[in-house]
Amino acid sequence: MTTLTEEILAFNKDRGWTSGNRDARNLAISVSLEASELLEHFQWLSGEQAVEKNREGIMEEAADVYIYLLQLADVAGFDLEEAARAKIHKNALKYPVPVGEPK
Amino acid sequence: MTTLTEEILAFNKDRGWTSGNRDARNLAISVSLEASELLEHFQWLSGEQAVEKNREGIMEEAADVYIYLLQLADVAGFDLEEAARAKIHKNALKYPVPVGEPK
Amino acid sequence: MTTLTEEILAFNKDRGWTSGNRDARNLAISVSLEASELLEHFQWLSGEQAVEKNREGIMEEAADVYIYLLQLADVAGFDLEEAARAKIHKNALKYPVPVGEPK
Amino acid sequence: MTTLTEEILAFNKDRGWTSGNRDARNLAISVSLEASELLEHFQWLSGEQAVEKNREGIMEEAADVYIYLLQLADVAGFDLEEAARAKIHKNALKYPVPVGEPK
Repeated sequence: MTTLTEEILAFNKDRGWTSGNRDARNLAISVSLEASELLEHFQWLSGEQAVEKNREGIMEEAADVYIYLLQLADVAGFDLEEAARAKIHKNALKYPVPVGEPK
Repeated sequence: MTTLTEEILAFNKDRGWTSGNRDARNLAISVSLEASELLEHFQWLSGEQAVEKNREGIMEEAADVYIYLLQLADVAGFDLEEAARAKIHKNALKYPVPVGEPK
Repeated sequence: MTTLTEEILAFNKDRGWTSGNRDARNLAISVSLEASELLEHFQWLSGEQAVEKNREGIMEEAADVYIYLLQLADVAGFDLEEAARAKIHKNALKYPVPVGEPK
Repeated sequence: MTTLTEEILAFNKDRGWTSGNRDARNLAISVSLEASELLEHFQWLSGEQAVEKNREGIMEEAADVYIYLLQLADVAGFDLEEAARAKIHKNALKYPVPVGEPK
């Protein structure tokens, strides 16, 4: 099966979008801009209201953030899934599970 | 195998982080803030310089964006991977492959 | 003369926009969203290209950032101009002027 | 009296910061990053809680957004105050004051 990253790269290549989309700084800017478009759905609404009113739009903007993130990972030479697992592991050491009374 | 989302949810649950982390608006804010921390690595450097100088930091911030994005998808009730495939499909209709001379 | 803040508050009051616009968290979100709309003009262009191509749009988005910033300062109870002078003073202590050969 | 923009430019000049700080794209990135640092104070708190807990930090980050915004306006060749007044005027035409019963 084709990975999502492979699909995105093929998509860009088919359209000749091979220069600006391979610059990590441009991609980091784009991740941030798409994250703002995602947040825009929540500008004047509560979380629940926004999801109820526009789940479709939220899905699309979240997808855009993810698509740019995968391209950035590809350009910078790392695997996003692995990076996330490593970060969770690091967080687990930083924030140990509180030990309490047996429940 | 445990999905990344399941790992993140278990991580939060073990630490009793179950309120603010389940609010879609908080999560959208956090996606945007982590995207800015990612962009911060590129504030005064070119893409290549930033990746060379701090690939580790870039990986970690990209991971943080992804981790919050997965939580947002979970709270809003959609699958991030599917949303990305749907968005690529939509983009493909919006930007058709240019037809040219046979190569 | 009417200050800019007074003009903005009168503008909102005339339109009955007096609830969401008086919440500091909403205003901080809006500052960030408008800053992204400003940055959007530079997504795929150099600084010079963007200014040449769309100075008008850049002016408008910069104005929007400023307008929300003034409202946030008002809600949080400080003067933006004074805060900026204080910050420059603090930066001056943090980054002293390098002493060199007389020129 | 020295304007704030003049103070900032003198500050940069005294420190030899005259290249990256004169690029509009770098400045737009910096406006967005500082706006996120401002928003960070509100990540897990309500507006009132955040202002009560950290008004000083909010003031400083708001000042940083403003300082970069003034530099961007200077590089792009416009006056921020004038741009804001023009934008308010434009908004007034877009959102006319609702006409109602005499109060």
